[in-house]
Amino acid sequence: MTKGSVALLGLGTMGRVLAERLLDAGHPVTVWNRTPGRDTALVERGARRAETVREAVTAATTVVTCLFDHASVRETLEPVGADLAGRTLVDLTTTTPNEARWLGGWAEEGGIEHLDGAIMATPSMIGAPEASLLYSGSAEAFGRHRTLFEVWGSATYDGADHGAASLFDLALLSGMYTMFTGFAHGAAMVTSAGVTAEEFAHRSARLLSAMTGVFPMTAKVIDEGDYTGPGQSLEWTATALDTIARASAEQGVSPGPIEMTRALVLAQIEAGYGNENSDRIYEELRAG
Amino acid sequence: MTKGSVALLGLGTMGRVLAERLLDAGHPVTVWNRTPGRDTALVERGARRAETVREAVTAATTVVTCLFDHASVRETLEPVGADLAGRTLVDLTTTTPNEARWLGGWAEEGGIEHLDGAIMATPSMIGAPEASLLYSGSAEAFGRHRTLFEVWGSATYDGADHGAASLFDLALLSGMYTMFTGFAHGAAMVTSAGVTAEEFAHRSARLLSAMTGVFPMTAKVIDEGDYTGPGQSLEWTATALDTIARASAEQGVSPGPIEMTRALVLAQIEAGYGNENSDRIYEELRAG
Ligand SMILES: NC(=O)c1ccc[n+]([C@@H]2O[C@H](COP(=O)([O-])OP(=O)(O)OC[C@H]3O[C@@H](n4cnc5c(N)ncnc54)[C@H](OP(=O)(O)O)[C@@H]3O)[C@@H](O)[C@H]2O)c1
Ligand SMILES: NC(=O)c1ccc[n+]([C@@H]2O[C@H](COP(=O)([O-])OP(=O)(O)OC[C@H]3O[C@@H](n4cnc5c(N)ncnc54)[C@H](OP(=O)(O)O)[C@@H]3O)[C@@H](O)[C@H]2O)c1
Repeated sequence: MTKGSVALLGLGTMGRVLAERLLDAGHPVTVWNRTPGRDTALVERGARRAETVREAVTAATTVVTCLFDHASVRETLEPVGADLAGRTLVDLTTTTPNEARWLGGWAEEGGIEHLDGAIMATPSMIGAPEASLLYSGSAEAFGRHRTLFEVWGSATYDGADHGAASLFDLALLSGMYTMFTGFAHGAAMVTSAGVTAEEFAHRSARLLSAMTGVFPMTAKVIDEGDYTGPGQSLEWTATALDTIARASAEQGVSPGPIEMTRALVLAQIEAGYGNENSDRIYEELRAG
Repeated sequence: MTKGSVALLGLGTMGRVLAERLLDAGHPVTVWNRTPGRDTALVERGARRAETVREAVTAATTVVTCLFDHASVRETLEPVGADLAGRTLVDLTTTTPNEARWLGGWAEEGGIEHLDGAIMATPSMIGAPEASLLYSGSAEAFGRHRTLFEVWGSATYDGADHGAASLFDLALLSGMYTMFTGFAHGAAMVTSAGVTAEEFAHRSARLLSAMTGVFPMTAKVIDEGDYTGPGQSLEWTATALDTIARASAEQGVSPGPIEMTRALVLAQIEAGYGNENSDRIYEELRAG
């Protein structure tokens, strides 16, 4: 079976690895990059060099973009909208959900099939099943490209809303970055008393990975919108957070991360929910 | 072998369970609570009721306090300091490290052996190995009481600094509360597009528990103080956080949690470290 032809636009750190895996898997690959010279190794491995964006997109039925941001995608693709008609556009550039939705609308108007993609992996992970890539937009395009996508890692379809993959990606990353900040804060607290961060790391990893087991329960409370069941009350949580914040300040460590959570808790207490459970911080965030 | 006698001061939700487990294990237990009537079930099971704090502390060689806060511990113990001389005081009340250090100093002056304890468990977990209790202060007292402490859960000795158990406890909890806020923020982002929190919970739990595997690497960077190795740069991180914050705002969700991390990243970039890796948020927190 011949593998589908792919045009890959954007040969940054990530784009180059995406192209390599496609070549490994036997796909005919045409590459383009704004600044010349980044395709040398790929061309040696069999990729075809396109001198212009138009030459690239007309060389393949599937066009993949992996550029800096949404603005660079628009700048690159808008001049070749007519050439893209009838082809499948897969944008793997990190964008906001609304930016992905905008591109989905633009593609639809121009008769272009569109999938937005989000890469939850570093370049060195691409090709391993641990690399998770999320897609949303045309279900049909996802079905037809699934095998191709699995060349890069696991492929998840998040629905027809073009913004869904990006939203899921950014929501998951929000949790991850925030967790790392909490870890850094805890590490700063213990190292201020001469304990190594390493000793803290193992204990923190054990506790936090165990506590992710609570997420499904919290989610159930959130989805049902009933915060009156068992669980730690907002009042109780406020006391605990106050103790942490005081300890942090005593140790000369910025209490910023814990004050952030505390502000959400206090706002919900202020709104009259002190006896309800602390999963209500979700409502505070959701209210914008 | 006769089990050591224990006086337990404070029969709140937690204190009552601590007393129950001691009775289960065959320890002679004397109980006291400020407000009468909370000891009925314990007395039925064999606990001895003390009418006064003095009567309680003189009835046992080991005195355990589980009161509301540091102020209530001082208020309860200061009048009976002389009676405590020669005994072991184990304070399981949640306090800041400095409060525990203060109590350690007060105890030392009065010839009282002191251990501070921190309970990392809910009352229903007490007695199971998943309940983790941390102790610091007198190493000798910890050694002698280890078997007794294991009646409540796993027992960890965190060192001679009386504040260490409390500091570890609060540092671990800081990571945990902050992680939950990150989860709630991610959940708010996806539910704003009609996805259930439940669907998000499973994926978030998988990602976050996997990412705790990075903590030891981050800790090594922190302990060595060298942020120039591989890893995501602060500049790159700022861009990612900006995209998350914009997506959050677009979806009508408060970007507070991600702005908190972003502020730390921007401050370190401002200080001239944009090309160094993002573990530097630790330095920003440590600077107070
Ligand atoms: N690297 C990762 O770990 C990772 C992980 C997940 C997602 N991503 C996402 O993947 C995308 C690419 O990341 P990367 O790491 O490959 O970035 P990179 O190494 O900085 O590459 C950026 C690419 O975008 C091109 N570009 C920038 N502005 C452009 C414009 N106005 N018009 C045309 N092309 C333009 C650059 O071309 P020039 O060579 O001409 O500058 C380059 O090919 C980003 O959206 C990123 O968020 C990356
Ligand atoms: N419950 C948990 O999940 C949990 C988990 C970890 C750690 N802890 C810690 O364990 C400690 C006790 O918690 P808890 O859940 O048992 O609280 P609780 O149910 O509210 O009980 C508080 C206890 O403190 C007593 N008390 C309050 N002020 C006092 C004062 N000025 N003088 C003497 N006694 C006073 C109360 O006596 P009265 O009956 O007279 O009011 C009661 O016995 C707290 O430090 C808490 O942070 C609890």
